Amino acid sequence: MSKTALVVSAHSADFVWRCGGAIALHAEKGFKVTVVCLSYGERGESAKLWRVPGMTLDRVKASREVEAKKAAEALGVHDIQFWDLGDYPITLSNDSLFRLVDVYRDIHPAFVLTHSKEDIYNRDHPAVTDFAQHARITAQAHGHNPGQKVLGAPPVFLFEPHQPEQCGWKPDVLLDIGSVWEKKRAAIECMEGQEHLWEYYTRVALQRGAQAARNSDKTIKWGEGFQSVFPHVVESLA
Amino acid sequence: MSKTALVVSAHSADFVWRCGGAIALHAEKGFKVTVVCLSYGERGESAKLWRVPGMTLDRVKASREVEAKKAAEALGVHDIQFWDLGDYPITLSNDSLFRLVDVYRDIHPAFVLTHSKEDIYNRDHPAVTDFAQHARITAQAHGHNPGQKVLGAPPVFLFEPHQPEQCGWKPDVLLDIGSVWEKKRAAIECMEGQEHLWEYYTRVALQRGAQAARNSDKTIKWGEGFQSVFPHVVESLA
Amino acid sequence: MSKTALVVSAHSADFVWRCGGAIALHAEKGFKVTVVCLSYGERGESAKLWRVPGMTLDRVKASREVEAKKAAEALGVHDIQFWDLGDYPITLSNDSLFRLVDVYRDIHPAFVLTHSKEDIYNRDHPAVTDFAQHARITAQAHGHNPGQKVLGAPPVFLFEPHQPEQCGWKPDVLLDIGSVWEKKRAAIECMEGQEHLWEYYTRVALQRGAQAARNSDKTIKWGEGFQSVFPHVVESLA
Amino acid sequence: MSKTALVVSAHSADFVWRCGGAIALHAEKGFKVTVVCLSYGERGESAKLWRVPGMTLDRVKASREVEAKKAAEALGVHDIQFWDLGDYPITLSNDSLFRLVDVYRDIHPAFVLTHSKEDIYNRDHPAVTDFAQHARITAQAHGHNPGQKVLGAPPVFLFEPHQPEQCGWKPDVLLDIGSVWEKKRAAIECMEGQEHLWEYYTRVALQRGAQAARNSDKTIKWGEGFQSVFPHVVESLA
Amino acid sequence: MSKTALVVSAHSADFVWRCGGAIALHAEKGFKVTVVCLSYGERGESAKLWRVPGMTLDRVKASREVEAKKAAEALGVHDIQFWDLGDYPITLSNDSLFRLVDVYRDIHPAFVLTHSKEDIYNRDHPAVTDFAQHARITAQAHGHNPGQKVLGAPPVFLFEPHQPEQCGWKPDVLLDIGSVWEKKRAAIECMEGQEHLWEYYTRVALQRGAQAARNSDKTIKWGEGFQSVFPHVVESLA
Amino acid sequence: MSKTALVVSAHSADFVWRCGGAIALHAEKGFKVTVVCLSYGERGESAKLWRVPGMTLDRVKASREVEAKKAAEALGVHDIQFWDLGDYPITLSNDSLFRLVDVYRDIHPAFVLTHSKEDIYNRDHPAVTDFAQHARITAQAHGHNPGQKVLGAPPVFLFEPHQPEQCGWKPDVLLDIGSVWEKKRAAIECMEGQEHLWEYYTRVALQRGAQAARNSDKTIKWGEGFQSVFPHVVESLA
Repeated sequence: MSKTALVVSAHSADFVWRCGGAIALHAEKGFKVTVVCLSYGERGESAKLWRVPGMTLDRVKASREVEAKKAAEALGVHDIQFWDLGDYPITLSNDSLFRLVDVYRDIHPAFVLTHSKEDIYNRDHPAVTDFAQHARITAQAHGHNPGQKVLGAPPVFLFEPHQPEQCGWKPDVLLDIGSVWEKKRAAIECMEGQEHLWEYYTRVALQRGAQAARNSDKTIKWGEGFQSVFPHVVESLA
Repeated sequence: MSKTALVVSAHSADFVWRCGGAIALHAEKGFKVTVVCLSYGERGESAKLWRVPGMTLDRVKASREVEAKKAAEALGVHDIQFWDLGDYPITLSNDSLFRLVDVYRDIHPAFVLTHSKEDIYNRDHPAVTDFAQHARITAQAHGHNPGQKVLGAPPVFLFEPHQPEQCGWKPDVLLDIGSVWEKKRAAIECMEGQEHLWEYYTRVALQRGAQAARNSDKTIKWGEGFQSVFPHVVESLA
Repeated sequence: MSKTALVVSAHSADFVWRCGGAIALHAEKGFKVTVVCLSYGERGESAKLWRVPGMTLDRVKASREVEAKKAAEALGVHDIQFWDLGDYPITLSNDSLFRLVDVYRDIHPAFVLTHSKEDIYNRDHPAVTDFAQHARITAQAHGHNPGQKVLGAPPVFLFEPHQPEQCGWKPDVLLDIGSVWEKKRAAIECMEGQEHLWEYYTRVALQRGAQAARNSDKTIKWGEGFQSVFPHVVESLA
Repeated sequence: MSKTALVVSAHSADFVWRCGGAIALHAEKGFKVTVVCLSYGERGESAKLWRVPGMTLDRVKASREVEAKKAAEALGVHDIQFWDLGDYPITLSNDSLFRLVDVYRDIHPAFVLTHSKEDIYNRDHPAVTDFAQHARITAQAHGHNPGQKVLGAPPVFLFEPHQPEQCGWKPDVLLDIGSVWEKKRAAIECMEGQEHLWEYYTRVALQRGAQAARNSDKTIKWGEGFQSVFPHVVESLA
Repeated sequence: MSKTALVVSAHSADFVWRCGGAIALHAEKGFKVTVVCLSYGERGESAKLWRVPGMTLDRVKASREVEAKKAAEALGVHDIQFWDLGDYPITLSNDSLFRLVDVYRDIHPAFVLTHSKEDIYNRDHPAVTDFAQHARITAQAHGHNPGQKVLGAPPVFLFEPHQPEQCGWKPDVLLDIGSVWEKKRAAIECMEGQEHLWEYYTRVALQRGAQAARNSDKTIKWGEGFQSVFPHVVESLA
Repeated sequence: MSKTALVVSAHSADFVWRCGGAIALHAEKGFKVTVVCLSYGERGESAKLWRVPGMTLDRVKASREVEAKKAAEALGVHDIQFWDLGDYPITLSNDSLFRLVDVYRDIHPAFVLTHSKEDIYNRDHPAVTDFAQHARITAQAHGHNPGQKVLGAPPVFLFEPHQPEQCGWKPDVLLDIGSVWEKKRAAIECMEGQEHLWEYYTRVALQRGAQAARNSDKTIKWGEGFQSVFPHVVESLA
């Protein structure tokens, strides 16, 4: 049976900038990666589209969905879902919570990726992290839909926010994404509406790569950083 | 060529309570583990011995060395060294620093174990952590004894202090030591001078084991916790 | 007039593991202790019951209530209330808030016990802490039910979560519960649905006791730790 | 075109104690300062009024509004608004959120003043900070009321809570308010219902003034402290 | 046998501003309070004296000693010692350490008062805290001067620095010093060389008093704040 | 009289990567900038040079001095000093302390730049920060070389370490260095021995520039980040 992973993304582009490398890398390893885009980022993260005369909310959403699907394909995503919950602010109801619980119980992810705990520039991001964590805990409850197999204890990794120091985010895991960098760059280039971020996140990947090299004495060029929520349970320290 | 690990222990019993499981586990995996006991803990951690009439500093040290060697043997330590630098307070000179640098360069450890960064109950412990970290950095300097192979970037793990919450110590790595628990208990029982700690650290191992089980959904009974100093560089998140 | 204390417990067993000793100790001192169980923990903390074939939510609740009442009796609780607000997630409405305000104003507790501020393994716990604190503040408002005697400034103590370091919980108060340990153990053994926790929390009590001894130079065997929310106002430092 | 500033105050007196000096100072510099009082603090911050026999909620509100208007006049406030959203607890709906977004977009403030992030004595204060920040972020979203000029990136300063150390508030900006102290004191004296705070906040101003002098080597007598949310973007370090 | 307390003060005036109330209060309760002034603050805290033409280091020290002795008398100090270790920077040798260990073992204090852990405006203060803590730990070592009665576990309280928020100091204990305020003020007025601080620390006492009242619902006018280093071991929570 | 600034750099290249922009910018504004290089970084930061056969410590130092002087010239440094105190570890004696005090008193800098408070990869950096801060405090002491003009309260800014999140460094000041970027790049290219860092710090400047733009709504391309040690004393919030 193949392994799975779950990405909970507030807006439809977040999974690309913040963990596109992790997705592509694990897809290549045979993981089926599910990406849940809770909103399109249609109001708050689509500035360029809104500069087009006559733009409407529906057209923004449609455009964002096309871009995200292309990027998902470039990364080898197994399943990408668009829940259209609105943004700025996002609306996270109990119904959506139980829907996400269903996803957890459906795929039993080996690990989960989502946003940083704090973000002074963005209110949807930490709300989504709390929501993803909330669903994970609910999926572990034996009394929720009794009879289903309850969720185990998949690790949760918080991907990089736009201004890491300002968000109190500290990477304790550095992932070598050199073997899939070309895929991540291709996915980034699908995000036509946010071209100003392409080089920014390319530089992020180079900095994290250089830091990974420093912390390992290995030759690493491209990297992604993650902050763990839970302690790592290991059978060896080396 | 066999792998190696380095334990830098302030007093001659610390390596037993705090990382005896990690030592035994890696010894079984074929690691050559070097333990440097910077002092015997002869003044500050030998209360029971000092209650013996006519006790002297030299007799305390001798007794502590015998106990520590027995424990090291029980754990499968490859090399245990006693540097006799004094305790309460420990004296950490530049000469000792360079001596520890030599150890780093001699064995090129795959990982390093030492004390927590803070300890409001103990001043030698954080001093030793700083010292071990200082030596590691110096061992990386190309201009120190040029011609020697410089140290890479071995991870450093901080083992558990006596009252973890009061010392700001938070375990982010939980190690399953179930397969070697008997060895750790045997080593603990070599510490005749500190019998009041036997059950305390047995309970610590059970609590960390239970927590490891919770965080992994695996069956784990005995554990040890560690706090990482550096980010983990990985090739997979699962 | 007898003194009172208030325990705000998310689920119907929390008050036993986390502050059973404090309850029994103060009950023996003549305090009337009120325990409010906001939910039964029927969905998220009753795994063993759910393994029984044909189990239903109502039967789980009934079973949990029986256990909690027995434990309360063993501890000498004056009044135990079951509010049945659901769990995983708990629902904390304004109506419930004002109901808890009424409790505060009814008993004017000398101190309050509730959960830790953070808990990465549990979302109901911190929600309840926030709720208990919210009700306390509202009970101090002169414009809430004018004419009633407003609440003073009772100290709030946060009891121990399951994995303290992971929840950023640090005990600054250690309570000697040696004189009532047998009662706490008896209460623990009432929790038949969570037998796997009996030894875990027995060990917690021994560790906190040993730490209390270390911090006081007294002979203490069994303890409970608490984290204060507010500064202590004192008339002496010794 | 004149510059503007926005103060988001949970209760109708907060803007006086906490940033009356900043308001008066900038008013003198020609800033049009808008103060939004989200509630009157009628339930939780009007103890003295509630001691008057026969007092009603409406009379408390009316009295608080009169006081706040007088204080605003003394400080040179351009526009003071009373939104009457209730207190202890305050109710912050999405409608109110969008109303505040409108204020942001209407005045495009050069800076924003609001409460501390934490306050263990007050639950409305941090809720309002979160709300003010939320509205600021929403006002930056291009898809919110497309066609309107979106908000830039005005700095947000958090003013002083009642017990600063207990609220984790640390001032990184100290403002010399010596030239307007008399105005602030006059505004303070408008708050007849909270006379017990007059001297308290006069002393706060003297302490912050003394600290400002220490940190600048200038002669400063009266001060106000603020905590920045965002990094300062500057063109010089001196 | 009378109880004792120990104050470790970096400079000869610190004990007055920072814990004069605690000293006077416990002296009235029958405690013999020993104050160790490690230096006179002759270089760094005697600006006014240095403005006198022809001033010398010896005259500054003499003047500071006279002031401190008067203040100690006003507070009811049992024993005040001047160790003359220099200031800005203070020199803390191992000889001085063992001398302080002797003081601990000589008086066996019921509690210890010293400086905050951090102080960005002062380097001697945190150095002295570390030193006082170091001596306390050494005094607990059975191997230090075997045969002497070892020190127990006296609590350590950190008194208030000049700019508390900037020094990360948070008071968790508020002491009512109303009954001895006049003595503290008298002691303050002995410090002729630092008259600019008289009103500053009078205001500090009023603020801490008001905060103590808020946190206890008692009538308290004058207070002092302290930060505990160790957890409080208690037999009751009320 | 022209304004001055002081940079205290642990090794001879640090001032280039970490604050070359600030130096060039203020030099253009007419500031006389003094750079004190406490060591050459000859042992720990000259890996490339040590790979040259037959290299000696003196040759490394000479080479580092030449590079640093060229860079200083490119940036418009007024005075660069090489104190040759050794590295890995650096030796910071009281004599060096008083020498740095003399520099402070000689130039009375408008601001000071130095390293981050923590750096898990480097022990000299935080030692130098502590040293620079120590000298600043000593320079404020009226009893140090009485008769000299004592130092005021110049702000201290901590420049960026190599791996900012791992060092707990958070920039609260972002400086636009666009007008002098070419000079900084030219200075960077003088550092022939560390060519692997050229692009790394070019990317850092682009990221900090993009972040400065985000936080100000201005067009900024190149930036440098700094962390303030002391609160900013201001006369306006806008």
